[in-house]
Amino acid sequence: MAQNQPIEALIDLMARLPGLGPRSARRAVLQMVRKRETLLSPLAEAMQEVARNVRECGNCGNIATGEICDICASNKRATGEICVVETVGDLWAMERANVFGGRYHVLGGTLSALDGIGPDELRIPRLVERIPAEEVTEVILALNATIDGMTTAHYIADRLDGMVRLTSLAQGVPVGGELDYLDEGTITAALAARKAF
Amino acid sequence: MAQNQPIEALIDLMARLPGLGPRSARRAVLQMVRKRETLLSPLAEAMQEVARNVRECGNCGNIATGEICDICASNKRATGEICVVETVGDLWAMERANVFGGRYHVLGGTLSALDGIGPDELRIPRLVERIPAEEVTEVILALNATIDGMTTAHYIADRLDGMVRLTSLAQGVPVGGELDYLDEGTITAALAARKAF
Repeated sequence: MAQNQPIEALIDLMARLPGLGPRSARRAVLQMVRKRETLLSPLAEAMQEVARNVRECGNCGNIATGEICDICASNKRATGEICVVETVGDLWAMERANVFGGRYHVLGGTLSALDGIGPDELRIPRLVERIPAEEVTEVILALNATIDGMTTAHYIADRLDGMVRLTSLAQGVPVGGELDYLDEGTITAALAARKAF
Repeated sequence: MAQNQPIEALIDLMARLPGLGPRSARRAVLQMVRKRETLLSPLAEAMQEVARNVRECGNCGNIATGEICDICASNKRATGEICVVETVGDLWAMERANVFGGRYHVLGGTLSALDGIGPDELRIPRLVERIPAEEVTEVILALNATIDGMTTAHYIADRLDGMVRLTSLAQGVPVGGELDYLDEGTITAALAARKAF
Protein backbone atom coordinates (compact mmCIF):
# COMPACT_ATOMS: atom_id res chain seq x y z
CA MET A 1 0.00 0.00 0.00
CA ALA A 2 1.12 3.50 -0.79
CA GLN A 3 -0.27 4.92 2.41
CA ASN A 4 1.99 6.56 4.87
CA GLN A 5 2.38 5.47 8.45
CA PRO A 6 0.17 7.95 10.39
CA ILE A 7 -2.70 7.40 7.94
CA GLU A 8 -2.40 3.62 8.18
CA ALA A 9 -2.36 3.76 11.98
CA LEU A 10 -5.53 5.87 11.99
CA ILE A 11 -7.29 3.56 9.52
CA ASP A 12 -6.42 0.51 11.66
CA LEU A 13 -7.89 2.16 14.75
CA MET A 14 -11.02 3.38 12.97
CA ALA A 15 -11.61 -0.13 11.58
CA ARG A 16 -11.95 -1.39 15.17
CA LEU A 17 -15.08 0.69 15.76
CA PRO A 18 -18.37 -1.23 15.52
CA GLY A 19 -20.03 -0.84 12.13
CA LEU A 20 -16.80 0.12 10.35
CA GLY A 21 -14.67 -2.33 8.39
CA PRO A 22 -11.35 -1.67 6.66
CA ARG A 23 -13.09 -0.25 3.60
CA SER A 24 -15.37 2.20 5.40
CA ALA A 25 -12.51 3.12 7.76
CA ARG A 26 -10.46 4.16 4.72
CA ARG A 27 -13.35 6.22 3.38
CA ALA A 28 -13.86 7.87 6.76
CA VAL A 29 -10.16 8.73 7.07
CA LEU A 30 -10.05 10.20 3.55
CA GLN A 31 -13.04 12.35 4.42
CA MET A 32 -11.28 13.51 7.60
CA VAL A 33 -8.14 14.43 5.69
CA ARG A 34 -10.20 16.38 3.17
CA LYS A 35 -12.00 18.22 5.96
CA ARG A 36 -9.10 18.74 8.29
CA GLU A 37 -10.29 22.00 9.88
CA THR A 38 -13.98 21.17 10.16
CA LEU A 39 -13.83 17.45 10.93
CA LEU A 40 -10.43 15.95 11.76
CA SER A 41 -9.20 18.48 14.32
CA PRO A 42 -12.61 18.88 16.03
CA LEU A 43 -12.91 15.07 16.25
CA ALA A 44 -9.48 14.74 17.84
CA GLU A 45 -10.34 17.45 20.36
CA ALA A 46 -13.78 16.00 21.13
CA MET A 47 -12.19 12.61 21.77
CA GLN A 48 -9.59 14.04 24.11
CA GLU A 49 -12.30 15.98 25.90
CA VAL A 50 -14.24 12.74 26.42
CA ALA A 51 -11.11 10.81 27.43
CA ARG A 52 -10.28 13.47 30.04
CA ASN A 53 -13.71 14.20 31.46
CA VAL A 54 -16.02 11.27 30.99
CA ARG A 55 -16.18 8.53 33.59
CA GLU A 56 -18.64 6.06 35.10
CA CYS A 57 -21.29 7.36 37.46
CA GLY A 58 -20.31 6.05 40.91
CA ASN A 59 -23.96 5.45 41.71
CA CYS A 60 -25.55 3.86 38.67
CA GLY A 61 -22.81 3.12 36.12
CA ASN A 62 -24.10 5.58 33.50
CA ILE A 63 -21.66 7.85 31.67
CA ALA A 64 -20.91 10.94 33.75
CA THR A 65 -18.78 14.07 33.67
CA GLY A 66 -18.67 14.44 37.45
CA GLU A 67 -18.73 11.95 40.34
CA ILE A 68 -22.33 11.06 39.55
CA CYS A 69 -24.28 11.32 36.30
CA ASP A 70 -26.85 13.94 35.26
CA ILE A 71 -29.74 11.57 35.93
CA CYS A 72 -28.61 10.63 39.45
CA ALA A 73 -27.86 14.30 40.17
CA SER A 74 -31.18 15.59 38.85
CA ASN A 75 -33.83 16.47 41.41
CA LYS A 76 -36.48 16.13 38.69
CA ARG A 77 -36.12 12.36 38.55
CA ALA A 78 -38.22 10.21 40.88
CA THR A 79 -36.02 8.47 43.45
CA GLY A 80 -38.35 5.61 44.28
CA GLU A 81 -38.01 3.75 40.95
CA ILE A 82 -34.91 2.16 39.47
CA CYS A 83 -34.83 0.80 35.94
CA VAL A 84 -32.14 -1.89 35.55
CA VAL A 85 -30.52 -2.03 32.08
CA GLU A 86 -27.58 -3.97 30.65
CA THR A 87 -25.65 -1.16 28.96
CA VAL A 88 -25.48 2.62 28.62
CA GLY A 89 -26.81 2.13 25.08
CA ASP A 90 -29.94 0.53 26.54
CA LEU A 91 -30.27 3.45 28.97
CA TRP A 92 -30.14 5.86 26.00
CA ALA A 93 -32.81 3.79 24.20
CA MET A 94 -35.08 4.08 27.28
CA GLU A 95 -34.41 7.83 27.48
CA ARG A 96 -35.28 8.30 23.80
CA ALA A 97 -38.72 6.82 24.53
CA ASN A 98 -38.97 9.61 27.11
CA VAL A 99 -41.50 7.85 29.34
CA PHE A 100 -39.49 6.84 32.41
CA GLY A 101 -39.04 9.47 35.09
CA GLY A 102 -37.03 7.49 37.62
CA ARG A 103 -33.37 6.56 37.83
CA TYR A 104 -31.33 3.81 36.25
CA HIS A 105 -28.88 1.13 37.21
CA VAL A 106 -26.50 0.05 34.43
CA LEU A 107 -25.22 -3.48 34.99
CA GLY A 108 -22.53 -3.29 32.33
CA GLY A 109 -23.46 -6.63 30.75
CA THR A 110 -25.06 -9.92 31.68
CA LEU A 111 -24.01 -12.82 33.90
CA SER A 112 -21.82 -15.24 31.98
CA ALA A 113 -20.08 -18.22 33.55
CA LEU A 114 -18.19 -18.72 30.28
CA ASP A 115 -16.70 -15.21 30.30
CA GLY A 116 -16.19 -15.23 34.08
CA ILE A 117 -18.72 -12.46 34.63
CA GLY A 118 -20.32 -12.86 38.04
CA PRO A 119 -22.59 -10.58 40.12
CA ASP A 120 -19.63 -8.52 41.38
CA GLU A 121 -18.55 -7.63 37.84
CA LEU A 122 -22.09 -6.48 37.08
CA ARG A 123 -22.56 -3.85 39.77
CA ILE A 124 -25.28 -5.99 41.35
CA PRO A 125 -24.05 -5.47 44.97
CA ARG A 126 -24.33 -1.72 44.39
CA LEU A 127 -27.92 -2.21 43.18
CA VAL A 128 -28.74 -4.07 46.41
CA GLU A 129 -27.21 -1.20 48.45
CA ARG A 130 -29.27 1.40 46.57
CA ILE A 131 -32.64 -0.13 47.51
CA PRO A 132 -32.64 1.03 51.15
CA ALA A 133 -30.32 4.01 50.56
CA GLU A 134 -32.65 5.64 48.01
CA GLU A 135 -35.88 4.29 49.54
CA VAL A 136 -36.65 2.46 46.31
CA THR A 137 -40.13 0.99 46.04
CA GLU A 138 -39.98 -0.51 42.53
CA VAL A 139 -37.22 -2.05 40.44
CA ILE A 140 -38.07 -2.40 36.74
CA LEU A 141 -35.99 -5.07 35.02
CA ALA A 142 -35.42 -3.78 31.46
CA LEU A 143 -32.86 -6.35 30.37
CA ASN A 144 -32.73 -7.57 26.81
CA ALA A 145 -35.13 -10.42 25.97
CA THR A 146 -32.24 -12.82 25.35
CA ILE A 147 -31.23 -15.95 27.22
CA ASP A 148 -28.41 -14.08 29.00
CA GLY A 149 -30.66 -11.14 29.79
CA MET A 150 -33.35 -13.39 31.22
CA THR A 151 -30.84 -15.39 33.29
CA THR A 152 -29.49 -12.16 34.76
CA ALA A 153 -33.00 -10.87 35.43
CA HIS A 154 -33.87 -14.05 37.34
CA TYR A 155 -30.67 -13.79 39.39
CA ILE A 156 -31.44 -10.17 40.32
CA ALA A 157 -35.04 -11.09 41.15
CA ASP A 158 -33.73 -13.75 43.58
CA ARG A 159 -31.33 -11.27 45.21
CA LEU A 160 -33.99 -8.56 45.65
CA ASP A 161 -36.81 -10.94 46.63
CA GLY A 162 -38.88 -9.41 49.40
CA MET A 163 -36.94 -6.13 49.44
CA VAL A 164 -38.87 -4.26 46.79
CA ARG A 165 -41.60 -4.57 44.14
CA LEU A 166 -40.10 -6.15 41.02
CA THR A 167 -41.47 -5.67 37.51
CA SER A 168 -40.16 -6.26 34.00
CA LEU A 169 -40.95 -4.82 30.58
CA ALA A 170 -43.98 -6.40 28.91
CA GLN A 171 -43.40 -8.87 26.09
CA GLY A 172 -45.66 -8.88 23.03
CA VAL A 173 -46.15 -7.72 19.47
CA PRO A 174 -43.94 -4.66 18.71
CA VAL A 175 -45.77 -1.51 17.59
CA GLY A 176 -46.12 -1.77 13.78
CA GLY A 177 -45.21 -5.46 13.91
CA GLU A 178 -46.83 -8.01 11.59
CA LEU A 179 -47.71 -11.43 12.95
CA ASP A 180 -46.36 -13.16 9.85
CA TYR A 181 -42.88 -11.87 10.63
CA LEU A 182 -42.87 -12.61 14.37
CA ASP A 183 -41.26 -15.66 15.94
CA GLU A 184 -43.33 -18.24 17.83
CA GLY A 185 -41.91 -17.16 21.20
CA THR A 186 -43.17 -13.58 20.78
CA ILE A 187 -46.62 -14.74 19.63
CA THR A 188 -46.83 -17.18 22.56
CA ALA A 189 -45.89 -14.38 24.99
CA ALA A 190 -48.33 -11.94 23.41
CA LEU A 191 -51.18 -14.46 23.57
CA ALA A 192 -50.43 -15.38 27.18
CA ALA A 193 -50.44 -11.69 28.15
CA ARG A 194 -53.57 -10.81 26.12
CA LYS A 195 -55.81 -8.13 27.59
CA ALA A 196 -59.40 -6.91 27.27
CA PHE A 197 -59.95 -4.92 24.07
CA MET B 1 -31.55 12.74 26.08
CA ALA B 2 -29.62 11.91 29.19
CA GLN B 3 -26.26 12.22 27.47
CA ASN B 4 -23.79 14.75 28.65
CA GLN B 5 -22.33 17.49 26.54
CA PRO B 6 -18.87 16.13 25.54
CA ILE B 7 -20.43 12.80 24.53
CA GLU B 8 -23.12 14.47 22.44
CA ALA B 9 -20.53 16.66 20.70
CA LEU B 10 -18.46 13.60 19.83
CA ILE B 11 -21.50 11.69 18.55
CA ASP B 12 -22.48 14.63 16.32
CA LEU B 13 -18.99 14.76 14.79
CA MET B 14 -18.77 10.99 14.30
CA ALA B 15 -22.17 10.99 12.57
CA ARG B 16 -20.69 13.25 9.88
CA LEU B 17 -18.27 10.55 8.74
CA PRO B 18 -19.31 8.68 5.59
CA GLY B 19 -20.98 5.36 6.38
CA LEU B 20 -21.96 6.38 9.92
CA GLY B 21 -25.40 7.66 10.86
CA PRO B 22 -26.58 8.91 14.27
CA ARG B 23 -27.27 5.35 15.44
CA SER B 24 -23.92 3.84 14.48
CA ALA B 25 -22.14 6.98 15.73
CA ARG B 26 -23.70 6.36 19.15
CA ARG B 27 -22.59 2.74 19.11
CA ALA B 28 -19.06 3.74 18.07
CA VAL B 29 -18.83 6.34 20.84
CA LEU B 30 -20.07 3.88 23.47
CA GLN B 31 -17.42 1.42 22.31
CA MET B 32 -14.76 4.15 22.59
CA VAL B 33 -15.85 5.04 26.12
CA ARG B 34 -15.74 1.37 27.12
CA LYS B 35 -12.25 1.01 25.65
CA ARG B 36 -10.79 4.31 26.70
CA GLU B 37 -7.17 3.22 27.04
CA THR B 38 -7.01 0.94 23.99
CA LEU B 39 -9.27 2.82 21.57
CA LEU B 40 -10.38 6.33 22.53
CA SER B 41 -7.03 7.82 23.54
CA PRO B 42 -5.08 6.14 20.69
CA LEU B 43 -7.67 7.39 18.19
CA ALA B 44 -7.44 10.96 19.48
CA GLU B 45 -3.64 10.83 19.26
CA ALA B 46 -3.65 9.24 15.79
CA MET B 47 -5.97 11.97 14.56
CA GLN B 48 -3.81 14.74 15.95
CA GLU B 49 -0.76 13.09 14.42
CA VAL B 50 -2.49 13.09 11.03
CA ALA B 51 -3.76 16.66 11.47
CA ARG B 52 -0.23 17.84 12.28
CA ASN B 53 1.79 15.87 9.76
CA VAL B 54 -0.29 14.89 6.79
CA ARG B 55 -0.54 17.22 3.81
CA GLU B 56 -0.96 17.12 0.05
CA CYS B 57 1.98 16.03 -2.07
CA GLY B 58 3.13 19.16 -3.91
CA ASN B 59 3.80 17.10 -7.01
CA CYS B 60 0.86 14.73 -7.46
CA GLY B 61 -1.81 15.59 -4.87
CA ASN B 62 -1.52 12.30 -2.97
CA ILE B 63 -1.45 12.28 0.83
CA ALA B 64 2.07 12.95 2.09
CA THR B 65 3.99 13.39 5.33
CA GLY B 66 6.74 15.50 3.76
CA GLU B 67 6.81 17.95 0.85
CA ILE B 68 6.22 15.13 -1.61
CA CYS B 69 4.57 11.73 -1.12
CA ASP B 70 6.22 8.34 -0.74
CA ILE B 71 5.39 7.36 -4.32
CA CYS B 72 6.85 10.53 -5.89
CA ALA B 73 9.89 10.24 -3.61
CA SER B 74 10.49 6.54 -4.36
CA ASN B 75 13.24 5.72 -6.82
CA LYS B 76 11.63 2.31 -7.39
CA ARG B 77 8.70 3.81 -9.29
CA ALA B 78 9.00 4.32 -13.06
CA THR B 79 9.07 8.02 -13.92
CA GLY B 80 7.86 7.76 -17.50
CA GLU B 81 4.26 6.78 -16.69
CA ILE B 82 1.62 8.81 -14.90
CA CYS B 83 -1.73 7.35 -13.90
CA VAL B 84 -4.37 10.08 -13.52
CA VAL B 85 -7.02 9.37 -10.86
CA GLU B 86 -9.84 11.42 -9.39
CA THR B 87 -9.21 10.93 -5.67
CA VAL B 88 -6.70 9.53 -3.20
CA GLY B 89 -9.20 6.70 -2.61
CA ASP B 90 -8.89 5.76 -6.29
CA LEU B 91 -5.09 5.86 -5.99
CA TRP B 92 -5.31 3.44 -3.05
CA ALA B 93 -7.58 1.16 -5.10
CA MET B 94 -4.98 1.12 -7.91
CA GLU B 95 -2.20 0.41 -5.40
CA ARG B 96 -4.16 -2.49 -3.89
CA ALA B 97 -4.22 -4.14 -7.33
CA ASN B 98 -0.44 -3.84 -7.12
CA VAL B 99 0.15 -3.85 -10.88
CA PHE B 100 1.11 -0.25 -11.67
CA GLY B 101 4.75 0.69 -11.15
CA GLY B 102 4.64 4.32 -12.27
CA ARG B 103 3.53 7.49 -10.53
CA TYR B 104 0.14 9.09 -10.02
CA HIS B 105 -1.58 12.39 -10.47
CA VAL B 106 -4.57 12.97 -8.19
CA LEU B 107 -7.01 15.48 -9.70
CA GLY B 108 -9.04 15.91 -6.53
CA GLY B 109 -12.38 15.49 -8.30
CA THR B 110 -13.95 15.98 -11.72
CA LEU B 111 -14.78 19.02 -13.81
CA SER B 112 -18.17 20.42 -12.87
CA ALA B 113 -19.60 23.64 -14.25
CA LEU B 114 -22.42 23.37 -11.73
CA ASP B 115 -20.08 23.26 -8.72
CA GLY B 116 -17.68 25.78 -10.29
CA ILE B 117 -14.86 23.26 -10.56
CA GLY B 118 -12.64 24.13 -13.51
CA PRO B 119 -9.23 22.83 -14.66
CA ASP B 120 -7.35 25.04 -12.17
CA GLU B 121 -9.21 23.53 -9.21
CA LEU B 122 -8.32 20.05 -10.47
CA ARG B 123 -4.53 20.30 -10.55
CA ILE B 124 -4.63 19.92 -14.35
CA PRO B 125 -2.05 22.70 -15.03
CA ARG B 126 0.35 20.87 -12.73
CA LEU B 127 -0.23 17.67 -14.74
CA VAL B 128 0.67 19.52 -17.95
CA GLU B 129 3.87 20.81 -16.31
CA ARG B 130 4.87 17.32 -15.19
CA ILE B 131 4.89 15.84 -18.73
CA PRO B 132 8.15 17.51 -19.85
CA ALA B 133 9.59 17.88 -16.34
CA GLU B 134 9.46 14.13 -15.63
CA GLU B 135 9.97 13.06 -19.25
CA VAL B 136 6.62 11.29 -19.21
CA THR B 137 5.91 9.04 -22.21
CA GLU B 138 2.48 7.70 -21.24
CA VAL B 139 -0.48 9.11 -19.33
CA ILE B 140 -3.04 6.50 -18.24
CA LEU B 141 -6.45 8.00 -17.61
CA ALA B 142 -7.94 5.96 -14.73
CA LEU B 143 -10.94 8.16 -14.03
CA ASN B 144 -14.22 6.67 -12.92
CA ALA B 145 -16.48 5.40 -15.70
CA THR B 146 -19.11 8.04 -14.92
CA ILE B 147 -20.34 10.95 -17.03
CA ASP B 148 -18.25 13.41 -14.98
CA GLY B 149 -15.20 11.15 -15.11
CA MET B 150 -15.49 10.75 -18.88
CA THR B 151 -15.99 14.49 -19.43
CA THR B 152 -12.86 15.20 -17.42
CA ALA B 153 -10.91 12.50 -19.26
CA HIS B 154 -11.85 14.05 -22.60
CA TYR B 155 -10.80 17.51 -21.41
CA ILE B 156 -7.41 16.19 -20.25
CA ALA B 157 -6.98 14.29 -23.53
CA ASP B 158 -7.53 17.59 -25.40
CA ARG B 159 -5.01 19.44 -23.22
CA LEU B 160 -2.32 16.75 -23.57
CA ASP B 161 -2.99 16.04 -27.26
CA GLY B 162 0.30 15.53 -29.11
CA MET B 163 2.42 15.85 -25.96
CA VAL B 164 2.33 12.25 -24.81
CA ARG B 165 0.82 8.82 -25.44
CA LEU B 166 -2.64 8.72 -23.85
CA THR B 167 -4.39 5.55 -22.71
CA SER B 168 -7.35 4.74 -20.51
CA LEU B 169 -8.44 1.71 -18.48
CA ALA B 170 -10.24 -0.95 -20.54
CA GLN B 171 -14.00 -1.22 -20.17
CA GLY B 172 -15.69 -4.63 -20.13
CA VAL B 173 -17.11 -7.39 -17.98
CA PRO B 174 -15.69 -7.25 -14.42
CA VAL B 175 -13.85 -10.36 -13.24
CA GLY B 176 -16.46 -12.67 -11.70
CA GLY B 177 -19.25 -10.63 -13.31
CA GLU B 178 -22.43 -12.23 -14.65
CA LEU B 179 -23.92 -10.92 -17.88
CA ASP B 180 -27.43 -11.05 -16.45
CA TYR B 181 -26.49 -8.47 -13.83
CA LEU B 182 -24.57 -6.11 -16.15
CA ASP B 183 -26.02 -2.94 -17.65
CA GLU B 184 -26.37 -2.52 -21.41
CA GLY B 185 -23.56 0.04 -21.57
CA THR B 186 -21.03 -2.38 -20.12
CA ILE B 187 -22.12 -5.20 -22.43
CA THR B 188 -21.95 -2.86 -25.44
CA ALA B 189 -18.42 -1.75 -24.45
CA ALA B 190 -17.30 -5.34 -23.82
CA LEU B 191 -18.63 -6.48 -27.18
CA ALA B 192 -17.05 -3.57 -29.05
CA ALA B 193 -13.68 -4.34 -27.41
CA ARG B 194 -13.91 -8.11 -27.91
CA LYS B 195 -10.65 -9.90 -28.53
CA ALA B 196 -9.42 -13.17 -30.02
CA PHE B 197 -9.98 -16.09 -27.62
